[in-house]
Amino acid sequence: MQALSWDGRLLRLESSRPTPATDQETVLVRVHLAGICSTDLQIFKGYMGFRGVPGHEFVGTVSEGPRELLGKRVVGEINFACGHCDYCNRGLERHCPKRSVMGILNADGAFAEFAAVPVANLHVVPDGVSDEEAVFTEPLAAAFEILQQVQPGPGDEVLILGDGKLGNLCAQVVRLTGARVTALGKHEEKLKIIKRAGVRTVLLKEWKPRLFDVVVEVSGSESGLQLAISAVRPRGTLVLKSTIAGEHHVSVAPLVINEITVIGSRCGPFAPALEALEERTVSVTPLIEKVYPLSYGVDAVSHAERGGTRKILLRP
Amino acid sequence: MQALSWDGRLLRLESSRPTPATDQETVLVRVHLAGICSTDLQIFKGYMGFRGVPGHEFVGTVSEGPRELLGKRVVGEINFACGHCDYCNRGLERHCPKRSVMGILNADGAFAEFAAVPVANLHVVPDGVSDEEAVFTEPLAAAFEILQQVQPGPGDEVLILGDGKLGNLCAQVVRLTGARVTALGKHEEKLKIIKRAGVRTVLLKEWKPRLFDVVVEVSGSESGLQLAISAVRPRGTLVLKSTIAGEHHVSVAPLVINEITVIGSRCGPFAPALEALEERTVSVTPLIEKVYPLSYGVDAVSHAERGGTRKILLRP
Repeated sequence: MQALSWDGRLLRLESSRPTPATDQETVLVRVHLAGICSTDLQIFKGYMGFRGVPGHEFVGTVSEGPRELLGKRVVGEINFACGHCDYCNRGLERHCPKRSVMGILNADGAFAEFAAVPVANLHVVPDGVSDEEAVFTEPLAAAFEILQQVQPGPGDEVLILGDGKLGNLCAQVVRLTGARVTALGKHEEKLKIIKRAGVRTVLLKEWKPRLFDVVVEVSGSESGLQLAISAVRPRGTLVLKSTIAGEHHVSVAPLVINEITVIGSRCGPFAPALEALEERTVSVTPLIEKVYPLSYGVDAVSHAERGGTRKILLRP
Repeated sequence: MQALSWDGRLLRLESSRPTPATDQETVLVRVHLAGICSTDLQIFKGYMGFRGVPGHEFVGTVSEGPRELLGKRVVGEINFACGHCDYCNRGLERHCPKRSVMGILNADGAFAEFAAVPVANLHVVPDGVSDEEAVFTEPLAAAFEILQQVQPGPGDEVLILGDGKLGNLCAQVVRLTGARVTALGKHEEKLKIIKRAGVRTVLLKEWKPRLFDVVVEVSGSESGLQLAISAVRPRGTLVLKSTIAGEHHVSVAPLVINEITVIGSRCGPFAPALEALEERTVSVTPLIEKVYPLSYGVDAVSHAERGGTRKILLRP
């Protein structure tokens, strides 16, 4: 059983069998495909001080576990909750303070032939959804989290600030509400893909400042954050969708003067994401740039780290 | 007609008649008392680039205007709206983009014998409310704004971070909801006044970190802002109540990871504030430190600028 392992300095292929990270009932999943995400790249820069097997976007088949799950094609939620604290009891498992997080915090992840995933975290993939689509369930669920927190309606003006993979998914998901969505980014090629999904796009150098009811900050940069704050109308909403390490210079006064609501937004619900993939209301495969074999994982990560790259996948 | 005027460098007593700052119907108010607020002190440090007569907390009597208002004792909302833009039409006059703001932006204020105030902004003061109480209506309304934005319930844990005048009012107002309110501050004397109003208090040096459902940041300091972020539970709410100039170093990641909602909160509704003063559900006069004649306004501001000062009032 091979896996890519990060020791804090180097990423290398090792032989290891995944061990369950919780005392919850766990299955072994044979990974078909795993996606490299910006959070993984942050980890290789020191984020969360993670050591072990990274990777939290995956699709695979249950190879060991309860009989009714064996052979099922699954994706998995990444927060491994304790199952019995106050947060878990209130249905806030994703915020369980004792949680481990697959490939991010105290739990080995999916850049491996096999991954250990709690049964409670599994979702069976509908037959009509390919592996190449299903591997986007996790980031697509993160985009759907926005709709759990803000309900833009038809006619509302929404700005998606950032044209990366998550920005693309956020734009497509928010568009489902009937809101008028504009995606703003630096990369002509990436904006083209977003435009094909029916979203208005603007290149940053052609940007004329105006105000939006809702702004989703998904650029992950300090300048993006400042632009985002300046683009929210008084009493409007700013959704922060980028998990970025480090401190930022922020002018707080505009938030107070304009009574803006800022909402931090992280992992989201898998069910609507799988439904959207099945019903083809969002389109994810144009986001794939290249699939590498797991044994070329180090090259795959180098590729993903290049600016302007679309999704890099690993196939164990 | 005398007024204190700020020219960007100096504050001095001048002879001037206030001119209406809007084309809305305006009355002349003979000022009984005016309060010096932190925003005024910020103005003397350059905030908003204001020039003219500062002062936006006042109580007075209508001396010129429509017959039915003559002789009425009034307080006034500070945002002078245009009355016919999109924001005004939606009832968001306090966010009218063309507004002037009394003593803060393009409108002379209340550090004067007479002030010009739009009729639409006036609220008649109930007989049972003294001038010394009514002069707190504006900051008390700002505290009531919190309850328009967040609805803590009995059992919810709320932290008020800051023991200044606005912190005191926020603590008293939030306590009215039945929430369990803790006020955290640096000043033993100020916390004593808050405690007398029935709020739990903790001195900063004795603070043991724990998590709250709602945190109200009213310290106006960068360290306060960081402490506030760290004290909000996952999916909890942080209310920003301090209008402070300049940039701040903020770690955005905890907001995203814990999916915290941050709400900027500024001016609030006068009606519940006047009602609370009339029904004596909040207590404001213990906050008064000293009343100066208007002609000693420069001394009054120097006094207000000393750390740990309670409310300084001016009596024209």
